[in-house]
Amino acid sequence: MKIGYKVWLDNHGKAFGDGPYELLRRVEKRTSLHQAASQMGMSYSKAWRLIRTLEERLGFALLERKVGGQSGGGSNVTSQGKDLMNHYGRFRRDAKRGLEKIYKKHFGSVERKN
Amino acid sequence: MKIGYKVWLDNHGKAFGDGPYELLRRVEKRTSLHQAASQMGMSYSKAWRLIRTLEERLGFALLERKVGGQSGGGSNVTSQGKDLMNHYGRFRRDAKRGLEKIYKKHFGSVERKN
Repeated sequence: MKIGYKVWLDNHGKAFGDGPYELLRRVEKRTSLHQAASQMGMSYSKAWRLIRTLEERLGFALLERKVGGQSGGGSNVTSQGKDLMNHYGRFRRDAKRGLEKIYKKHFGSVERKN
Repeated sequence: MKIGYKVWLDNHGKAFGDGPYELLRRVEKRTSLHQAASQMGMSYSKAWRLIRTLEERLGFALLERKVGGQSGGGSNVTSQGKDLMNHYGRFRRDAKRGLEKIYKKHFGSVERKN
């Protein structure tokens, strides 16, 4: 037996969580929402709608359009978006550690089957 | 903004969580799975299947049949079930406190809109 959990940020609905965090990490690497979405098996339009919904709930922009250049544009994560990713990444790490410790405290000695 | 989260026990699938915890609490009070399920807007057959699935994943019985008596039977939570409820109740309380503390550490100073 082990702990199962999900954490996210809520502002009248899900405002940020593991899925968006992974999506933005891929946007940062590829400077393309299209490629980031595709890597996660998500359609571009679904990823785009997700980002718009999160931006509304967060109250700031996560992506900015990169104009021109050799590749003819693409998307970058805004500085507020990067700041959120940093906070969320550390929050997620601490939540994992904290929850595993709490689980162990209450169920560590209750090793039943498996 | 606030933290959103869900915690549960996992053993090759969800083995226990808030829903089953509430259901068993109501069974304890009413000594009836039928009434407990109905209070939660769940059909008896759905509640029964849920309990069976959890029992398989946990490896022990959660409910026992209460035979005879004035009310002509009903269901009770087994002592292993009660033990699990106690552990889970404390685990859930600590998880809530721990996560709120971790959230505050990372996002407490980031009060944006709302």
